[in-house]
Amino acid sequence: MDNCIFCLIAKGDIPSATLYEDEKFRVILDLGPAARGHALVIPKEHYADLFEIPADLAAEAVKLAKRLLPAMKEALSCDGFQLVQNNGEAAGQTVSHYHLHIIPCYAGKGPGAAWTPGELAEEDKTAIPEAVKKLL
Amino acid sequence: MDNCIFCLIAKGDIPSATLYEDEKFRVILDLGPAARGHALVIPKEHYADLFEIPADLAAEAVKLAKRLLPAMKEALSCDGFQLVQNNGEAAGQTVSHYHLHIIPCYAGKGPGAAWTPGELAEEDKTAIPEAVKKLL
Repeated sequence: MDNCIFCLIAKGDIPSATLYEDEKFRVILDLGPAARGHALVIPKEHYADLFEIPADLAAEAVKLAKRLLPAMKEALSCDGFQLVQNNGEAAGQTVSHYHLHIIPCYAGKGPGAAWTPGELAEEDKTAIPEAVKKLL
Repeated sequence: MDNCIFCLIAKGDIPSATLYEDEKFRVILDLGPAARGHALVIPKEHYADLFEIPADLAAEAVKLAKRLLPAMKEALSCDGFQLVQNNGEAAGQTVSHYHLHIIPCYAGKGPGAAWTPGELAEEDKTAIPEAVKKLL
């Protein structure tokens, strides 16, 4: 897509701090990192999100992330990783081009992407599974 | 693993609100949800994290999540999804058995797993890519 910044970055038309590149993906450092070394796996083809991207390509993105982790761990001396993949504005997706965040985590600094746990409502324990199963 | 709670849940020895089950995975509702419908994709085989799990099984977990999204969207009337996969205590992983969070997001409520963007340091733009590339 002509006006998609991640299309332009992935294809190299806009320069980026690139960790890895192959025919299908470019992996860059996020300009607004949650932590040092925060990277994005970006497919070169344009798909808005996990709904749109072909299942095989989403699978390859995760395999690539897995392949990068040991090298990133050693290069960054970090203690763990969060993988985050946002779908839709409500999920905090700011660029509508599928991307997978690899967020290094450092002991004592807490995870970058944290949430406050709620409680699973008693009625939802049966209502949600039943509703989802019917639609699968 | 005998003393792993997710092994026991995945195999059905501990009951759970199950959305989906097949030979390799069980998908359950999280007891401490970030938002209504927060689910976990749990492989039945024990692997601590993305470092340990075979690449193909991690890929299948994501394919399964992708398959569940449309049904979950319709059942929950949510507006987006975050997929989060934590690796290591520093990343907020509380159970050392690989699992993939599917967190429904609702417009106006903000994403469940948010972070504060920092800034990519000028020297890291070249230092980190160089260090990672050397190790790949």
